[in-house]
Parts: sequence; structure tokens; C-alpha cells
Amino acid sequence: MLNVGKIENGFVLDHIQAGKSMSIYRDLQLGQLDCCVAIIKNAKSNKMGKKDIIKVECPVDIVNLDILGFIDHNITINIIRNGEITEKLTLRLPKEIRNVLKCKNPRCITSIEQELDQIFMLTDPEKEVYRCRYCEEKYTL
Amino acid sequence: MLNVGKIENGFVLDHIQAGKSMSIYRDLQLGQLDCCVAIIKNAKSNKMGKKDIIKVECPVDIVNLDILGFIDHNITINIIRNGEITEKLTLRLPKEIRNVLKCKNPRCITSIEQELDQIFMLTDPEKEVYRCRYCEEKYTL
Repeated sequence: MLNVGKIENGFVLDHIQAGKSMSIYRDLQLGQLDCCVAIIKNAKSNKMGKKDIIKVECPVDIVNLDILGFIDHNITINIIRNGEITEKLTLRLPKEIRNVLKCKNPRCITSIEQELDQIFMLTDPEKEVYRCRYCEEKYTL
Repeated sequence: MLNVGKIENGFVLDHIQAGKSMSIYRDLQLGQLDCCVAIIKNAKSNKMGKKDIIKVECPVDIVNLDILGFIDHNITINIIRNGEITEKLTLRLPKEIRNVLKCKNPRCITSIEQELDQIFMLTDPEKEVYRCRYCEEKYTL
């Protein structure tokens, strides 16, 4: 395994399903950050066999991590301050998802007005249902 | 900086221009590998200010590194065996580049027959000129 060392201030996303780190990198728009980002693919894991890890050296509040609850609630988030893990965040489904999912309804206003934000709302937390804020189309993979 | 630890067997691409690691990851098709791959973006560098690094834990002969000479000849390749750097490769322009560049000539056979390999040959090493093997169109960025 490629060991990735210490962060001073930032966060670590651990227990990412193996092979999923690149799409999470895109969904969190980490490519736009100026800070140091490490992505480890196919790291050995006792629990999972293989896993991916993402480490980011930056103030945690400049990245919106809410979306991770939607992507995979098994991901572990460790917040690092002064080289120590100060917080472990648990993931829950976000109430609103902005500009990550796309509405597939061809008659939805967002299909026509391309500059509109794509917004989905959690309408049924139990069944994990998201619906487009504009046309109420249910999100399906 | 996010320190990335020891490889037992594999290779390290060091001194990648900051921000370029993702496109190199794609060009080398590292996403298809089953082995552990670490990408570090915006690592601190005395020489370059910032740099990217890619570390791959796999037999070095399963990745075609020739293309790196074309992408950026300042990249350093360290081959690691049994945890030690056993070789440093210097980069030179590859004689042939396969399926990385695309011929932009709309009348080229590769524009019509989509299943053909895209092949460019180094026709002028001094001026670093590559030409399409089929239509001899010069490659321009």
C-alpha cells in the first residue's frame, strides 16, 4: 500500500469504495482547489479488501461535503486540525443537492434554460427519494 | 505537504508540473490498473514551488511510459524494486505515439474509420514535429 502521511489542517475521506475516488474528486470539485490533494486508489483495507482514500490539506469549510451522504454514506470523514483528528463526521442524506445531479425530464425548465442551477430536494428520507425542485421529476440513476 | 510513503515495487513520476497529474493519469490509462495508485496534486517543491507526483505500485512493464517524453520531458521517473530506487529513467521523445493524439484533418482516414488506431510518428526530432502516420498531417496543440 502507498502510505500517505500527515495532514496538518484539512480532512480525510476514508473507506471510499475502491475505484470511486475519481468521481468523488469531480463531484466535490477538488480540481479547482489550489491546495494539496492526494488520491489513493486501491489501497489495502482489512474491512473492505480494497478502498480509496482522499486527503485534502485545506480549510474544511471551503468544500461542501454534504453531497457525500448521497454518494455513499459508508465514507468516513476525519477532520484534522494541527495534525490531530479533531472530529469524525457522520454522513446523512443532504436535504438539497445542487449542480451534481441532472434532471432527465426533457420538458423540465432546466433542460431548456441551461444556465439554471440543477437542484434536487430530498422528498422522502426513508426511501431516499430526490425530486427536481422545478418539475418534481424523481431522480433515477 | 501530504507525504506519500514507501512503494515496494513500482514507479514514481516526480516533478510533474502542478495540475497536470490528472491528464497524465488519463494518458497513461492508470485508471484501468487494479493496483494501488496515488496522485498528489500541488505538493510543495523547492525546485518548482508546486508540483504533482504519481506513485504506482505495479510491475513497471505493464505501463507504457514512452508518451511521457512527449508530454513533459522534465518529469523524473524512478523505478522502485524491493523498496529501493533501482533506476532513474531519462525521458526522450517517443518515435511513435499511439492512441493519445488525435488527427485533426477531417479528410484523414482516422476521422472516418473510427476504429483505426491513431498513430503519430516523430518526423523531425530537432523541431519535435509529429505527423499522422496515415495522412502526414502535422500535429498541433
